Amino acid sequence: MRLRVTYHLAGSTRTAAATARDLAFEQTVELPRDTVPSELAARVAGRVESVRAAGRGRSRAVVSFDTSLVCEDVPQLLNLLFGNISLKRGVLVAGIDWPDDLLAALGGPRLGIPGVRDLAAAARGPLLCAALKPLGLSAAGLAELAYTFARAGIGLVKDDHSLVDQTAAPFRERVERCQEAVTRANRETGGNTLYLPNVTSDAAAIVERADFARRAGCRGVVVNALPAGLGSVGAVSRATGLAVVSHPSLAGAFFQGDHGIAPAVLLGDLFRVAGSDAVIYPNVGGRFTFSERTCVAINARLRGPLGPVRPAFPVPAGGIDAARVPHWIERYGADTVFLLGSSLYAQPDLERAARRLVEAVKRHSHG
Amino acid sequence: MRLRVTYHLAGSTRTAAATARDLAFEQTVELPRDTVPSELAARVAGRVESVRAAGRGRSRAVVSFDTSLVCEDVPQLLNLLFGNISLKRGVLVAGIDWPDDLLAALGGPRLGIPGVRDLAAAARGPLLCAALKPLGLSAAGLAELAYTFARAGIGLVKDDHSLVDQTAAPFRERVERCQEAVTRANRETGGNTLYLPNVTSDAAAIVERADFARRAGCRGVVVNALPAGLGSVGAVSRATGLAVVSHPSLAGAFFQGDHGIAPAVLLGDLFRVAGSDAVIYPNVGGRFTFSERTCVAINARLRGPLGPVRPAFPVPAGGIDAARVPHWIERYGADTVFLLGSSLYAQPDLERAARRLVEAVKRHSHG
Repeated sequence: MRLRVTYHLAGSTRTAAATARDLAFEQTVELPRDTVPSELAARVAGRVESVRAAGRGRSRAVVSFDTSLVCEDVPQLLNLLFGNISLKRGVLVAGIDWPDDLLAALGGPRLGIPGVRDLAAAARGPLLCAALKPLGLSAAGLAELAYTFARAGIGLVKDDHSLVDQTAAPFRERVERCQEAVTRANRETGGNTLYLPNVTSDAAAIVERADFARRAGCRGVVVNALPAGLGSVGAVSRATGLAVVSHPSLAGAFFQGDHGIAPAVLLGDLFRVAGSDAVIYPNVGGRFTFSERTCVAINARLRGPLGPVRPAFPVPAGGIDAARVPHWIERYGADTVFLLGSSLYAQPDLERAARRLVEAVKRHSHG
Repeated sequence: MRLRVTYHLAGSTRTAAATARDLAFEQTVELPRDTVPSELAARVAGRVESVRAAGRGRSRAVVSFDTSLVCEDVPQLLNLLFGNISLKRGVLVAGIDWPDDLLAALGGPRLGIPGVRDLAAAARGPLLCAALKPLGLSAAGLAELAYTFARAGIGLVKDDHSLVDQTAAPFRERVERCQEAVTRANRETGGNTLYLPNVTSDAAAIVERADFARRAGCRGVVVNALPAGLGSVGAVSRATGLAVVSHPSLAGAFFQGDHGIAPAVLLGDLFRVAGSDAVIYPNVGGRFTFSERTCVAINARLRGPLGPVRPAFPVPAGGIDAARVPHWIERYGADTVFLLGSSLYAQPDLERAARRLVEAVKRHSHG
């Protein structure tokens, strides 16, 4: 079967058709057309399926690739879609039509929305997630925060994505203390808060760290998917069975207008098929630059029908407080995790602010 | 000690100073200034060292970070330099001043230029590298090419970066056959050609593949550093002791003018400190868009003095044939690997064309 990729290309349809033909060869056989035997080209090279004008001096080309070139391998998927042509200009991966054989091979989230809901004992309604920060706090200090959030009934408590193994809060100590704090709070309240440590590291260490987290009692982890390599998400999930929440660190390199990978394709399709059970992205109204339309498109690609692949939770971050919770639930729907960051920490009484958010979500979810 | 990073920022020095202050907090404590205790901020937040006008409505800001935040971890290094701020606009990582403690901790290339020269038994002069392609050829077909190149005296023979584990040439069969072909050619000629298979895969598989290559007799491998995660380079090198040649697949996402990471910083500094013994980049005059100035800057960052870190081979790809070899040797110097791709395959007699290149390099290197 064939993977159909929509590229937005600079130029008229005539220029874009030439670009698309080059791209179809560059991304596969990586040789000019006249040096490749035609039998092999027919079997292996990409095929330009269509080229149409897209307005404003740009065109929309659909190029299809044989799914067997992907080898069920996420790094190779990225390489096939945008590897060498990233080094050209004016090429945007704007959409992907996924054939079921490739989706089945890649697998997607092992748990997805239903699995994360099971872990969090939250059958319906939106979830809240609080971030443990700042970097520089001791493991004991972070654990105290984790306890506060869990006591307040926040469903997910995650490490800030910059917490790695710094001396102030070394990885193992941090994971053990935070998990213990959340377990203690759950015991006291009868709650089910999950603590999600950041396990991002290199290829040799990331699975080991995730496994340490699992042994410490964690049910999920955070991965900086692009710094670690997008294939790490599935590697961690398969090796440990833990839920993986992917963070968008570095992703903005791909979002510079007319060259790169569209946010909904990278953070929606690709992060999902790579195995993320939930994907954090910068919400409109926060510190970053996504429009509401982009956020809605990411949500749709994370949760919409996608062959045999489970839906993943969108985790919009930023711009969320007790007053605006009803608006966002209405806008994004119940299958959403709202990530609370700076605005929560700006409150004088953290526990009270967290409780107020939990109450606001409950009120709005149950009528 | 402190890592000093030069960012090019949009706007006047006044605007840029505000951006730099935000960035210094965003990339570390990830909280607004007024919610962070000042003792902690002093210890952990980035510091704006200087902001100067850079012309054309842009400014140059130097922000320094405590090196202990990096945790000797390459994914965290990327995250610290550009993680969240990638999601903003008009921020370019333009230069890095590396303190020796961080360089010593990260390590850089395990072999570097001297080590690769030892493996290739090439004490001086430029090296040539040929790519095995196209994707779609059988393992036997690729091995035949490898044999041809090795017979012709090409020093390095690498897999095309899109050869993964496709059914036409499955990974293990390809590695065994190509290594055998190169060993046989070396035995016949008394040569020392190295075969470098592409081992790129996810975190769980990449080290395993590299180790398979090592056991098959290979002395080096190719890694698509960004698709695999830049930390994979060091993970493979440390686990196997093999030379690692990094490929720039996906890197172009970072090179879109005023936002991203400058080519010489990403492919020069970062690929080198991550442990690449050699770094492929698209040469001026080939199919891609680098200027000669950019290429020279990458060479300088790969080979120049960098504390205790070994120099890495620049591997310019494209625009190289027998006639132009003297020009490029003069321009780039002897500590260069020239990667031959399409132009070689366009020749009717591959072995003869390869020999002509080897002769051209010898002639020009020895007088």
